[in-house]
Amino acid sequence: MLNTVDLGRTVSKDDYKKELPELRSRLIAAQWALKNADVSVLLIIEGMDGSGRADVVNRLHEWLDPRGIQTHTFWNPSDEERERPPYWRYWRVLPATGQIAIFMGGWYRGILTDAVHGRIDKAMLEARLRPVLDIENMLAADRTLILKFWYQLPGDVQEKRLSRENATPDDRWPSAKAALKGRKALQEHAERILRRTDTAEAPWFIIEAEDERYRDLSTAYTLLEAMESRLATRTERRAAPLPPSEPALPHAASARVTVLDHVDLEARADPGDHGKHLERLQHELRDLLWKVYGKGLTTYLVFEGWDAAGKGSTIRYLTVGMDARLYRVIPYGAPSSHELAHHYLWRFWRQAPRAGRVAIFDRSWYGRVLVERVEGFCKPAEWQRAYHEINEFESQLDGDNGLVLKFWLHISPEEQLRRFEDRKSTPWKQYKITDEDWRNREKRDTYEAAVNEMVLRTDTEYAPWHLIASEDKKFGRLRVLEIVRDALAKRLEK
Amino acid sequence: MLNTVDLGRTVSKDDYKKELPELRSRLIAAQWALKNADVSVLLIIEGMDGSGRADVVNRLHEWLDPRGIQTHTFWNPSDEERERPPYWRYWRVLPATGQIAIFMGGWYRGILTDAVHGRIDKAMLEARLRPVLDIENMLAADRTLILKFWYQLPGDVQEKRLSRENATPDDRWPSAKAALKGRKALQEHAERILRRTDTAEAPWFIIEAEDERYRDLSTAYTLLEAMESRLATRTERRAAPLPPSEPALPHAASARVTVLDHVDLEARADPGDHGKHLERLQHELRDLLWKVYGKGLTTYLVFEGWDAAGKGSTIRYLTVGMDARLYRVIPYGAPSSHELAHHYLWRFWRQAPRAGRVAIFDRSWYGRVLVERVEGFCKPAEWQRAYHEINEFESQLDGDNGLVLKFWLHISPEEQLRRFEDRKSTPWKQYKITDEDWRNREKRDTYEAAVNEMVLRTDTEYAPWHLIASEDKKFGRLRVLEIVRDALAKRLEK
Repeated sequence: MLNTVDLGRTVSKDDYKKELPELRSRLIAAQWALKNADVSVLLIIEGMDGSGRADVVNRLHEWLDPRGIQTHTFWNPSDEERERPPYWRYWRVLPATGQIAIFMGGWYRGILTDAVHGRIDKAMLEARLRPVLDIENMLAADRTLILKFWYQLPGDVQEKRLSRENATPDDRWPSAKAALKGRKALQEHAERILRRTDTAEAPWFIIEAEDERYRDLSTAYTLLEAMESRLATRTERRAAPLPPSEPALPHAASARVTVLDHVDLEARADPGDHGKHLERLQHELRDLLWKVYGKGLTTYLVFEGWDAAGKGSTIRYLTVGMDARLYRVIPYGAPSSHELAHHYLWRFWRQAPRAGRVAIFDRSWYGRVLVERVEGFCKPAEWQRAYHEINEFESQLDGDNGLVLKFWLHISPEEQLRRFEDRKSTPWKQYKITDEDWRNREKRDTYEAAVNEMVLRTDTEYAPWHLIASEDKKFGRLRVLEIVRDALAKRLEK
Repeated sequence: MLNTVDLGRTVSKDDYKKELPELRSRLIAAQWALKNADVSVLLIIEGMDGSGRADVVNRLHEWLDPRGIQTHTFWNPSDEERERPPYWRYWRVLPATGQIAIFMGGWYRGILTDAVHGRIDKAMLEARLRPVLDIENMLAADRTLILKFWYQLPGDVQEKRLSRENATPDDRWPSAKAALKGRKALQEHAERILRRTDTAEAPWFIIEAEDERYRDLSTAYTLLEAMESRLATRTERRAAPLPPSEPALPHAASARVTVLDHVDLEARADPGDHGKHLERLQHELRDLLWKVYGKGLTTYLVFEGWDAAGKGSTIRYLTVGMDARLYRVIPYGAPSSHELAHHYLWRFWRQAPRAGRVAIFDRSWYGRVLVERVEGFCKPAEWQRAYHEINEFESQLDGDNGLVLKFWLHISPEEQLRRFEDRKSTPWKQYKITDEDWRNREKRDTYEAAVNEMVLRTDTEYAPWHLIASEDKKFGRLRVLEIVRDALAKRLEK
């Protein structure tokens, strides 16, 4: 890709002056139309030292409305960034719909640098590119228009440019001499990385950077046409139908057994021993968590389950055994307008705790494949895509220092009814029961199918599901605490 | 305060068991009522090592709904926190309405520690307490119920407790011996600090911590009664009328001259020289900003002005002279629901850039004393309080490494009319003109009075207002760029 680009393209001063006014007003018009179009734009700017990446960006800021565009550099990560999964620093600045974000280098920066300096081999490079492809696909499938630009320069021009400028933090080499020496390696690795990540959803554009007018105009035209064509085709790309994700089933009940049918709801806690057992577990947990804190391990506990299965009380019993300074309970509410303007995982990325802490999710991103699926709040293509997205997300949470545990609290429909009636008749529990709970109850079968597929598709070795028999509340609680304790203890041994 | 607290208060196990159920259900009920009451709760927990501060907090988490309560520790600041004004780390975790936040130590922690170790003298202590009083007043006057708890322990009990426990990061001393040695100094300084900050809006509660049941129950009762009484009196405290803030004026026009009347709207740029001058300024700015970045200085540029005075284009010309990686333009839109659930300054605190960067506010927190005042979006007491709050806020932005510059772009009503007509008749400018602009125009006199008071009250030596004659757009732009350049150059010399 990079070798064929030395075509000597130029734009004369006169042509530049002639074309600029219309280009600029169309750019502004398209940018304004974005605001009502539920589309965000992400530009990734990469290229050789001396190719003028920063100048292009400045030009775009000049030509567009600066209130709708933000440029982000990813120089040395802050300690808050280092304490979280590597992609957290990108998620925190992803553009909302209506906005344009420019990433200088973005997720390519570190990979390319490591490759050039021989710090990663080919297999490692593939491994590093996997999350790149994943996040780009995920964002493109959502509502983001992704355009990636590589600025290319002949060697002699590069030498001349670099010798008269100071290096900025975006440059790879401190001097013209070093850049020229590293030029071949850069080109070779860039070629491989660009080819590997040049997808229809997030294409690379190779731009000759020798002639600055050509460089800036062609960048702007590319952005403009991409915006205009996206704005013209207002079909919902993200909802394009996908093939069904599950086998079609015979009608016989025996053919419709789900993972939940294998949960032994008869399990009971020993009533005599229960209190003591619980206290011991809470005590152990407290000690373990300070050790986990000391090691900088981050724990993510996800609670899902039927209404009235006891998520709230389980979390309460669990947290009694934790120091309040070390954990955070994150409830799941209706998303805010700001959250709706981003990918649905964005709100959970924002909640990633610092190293050593525990994040407890009282309902979670699984809403996408449960309530949103069943109630039709999202399109089939969206929840179908979510399984892969969630697995990828959790694998990043797991990372080097994470521990992800997921719990489904299971009760029978009969027990649920008993608890609903109890809530209705106990004054201080009434806030817990809503019309929605009764409506959900009627859709039990649909929900159960969704739970089944969820568990099948997202039960991974790094983020396992635990199906908890909660028919007896006490038994359920003890199980959860035991599982958390055992997982933490095992994690500390690693 | 602290010497009189050794009363030996206790609660027996039986009494504890008897009182707890009702206490807990009232706590939960009050917490739930909070959610609809437009009130947030902030608890500050301080006290002696060994007094069980963390245990109290865990108890509160147990007794309350953990989904509505978050505890925040302020151990070593992260580098992202260190690069911003010191109070940024508190602002980022202030509770939204409906939420309870517990601050371990909060803003008292560092002050008390520094005082105990003799790192600050009395005058310095006063200086450190000023922002404490300010933020507490500000939050209390907004919608926050602030309760501060100090846990006190007799020396012998403290010794016994500390000798059997490991120190946590909240402890001041690593061992029982050290804590006892430092006990007198701590008590002495705590006494002074508590007395100085014990206000009606944010009172301290001294709690004997020897008997754990008494300690936990009295904390919970205090919180409960404060919540219940706040919920019972739904009068809007924050809107309680204040005395008028400005002198009443005679009717004669000569008595109603404002600061804006002193701006020379005849000022014109030299048309021949303008382009060159602008380019030179932009070039100088670019160099200066990299130096500013190198020194870690943070720049805040605030733009206010009449509709169509040229804020947008001035910002565009200004940013042409800046590297896009170093600045951010922050537009001022209608607040989101999440922002409305906080103090009005919260959304601007969130935007504080990292060290070395430039934040450009296209309209700003001055909306409080301009549009919100004139349109009646907030109560008189609220905008009257805002002047002091803004001065305090800007003094924190200024801090050790900040530079705050504020611009009011001034044009005559006649020039404004010309520009409105031009916008109406130019297709690609039409989005810039709305019915609201025409309505605002009719209220020019009211706005002018508001601008006058704003400038008089918030023109400080650390965050000066610059009134820019923008009747001639080119002149206005050049002035702004010159002022920014000169201020940056001067700041670098310091």
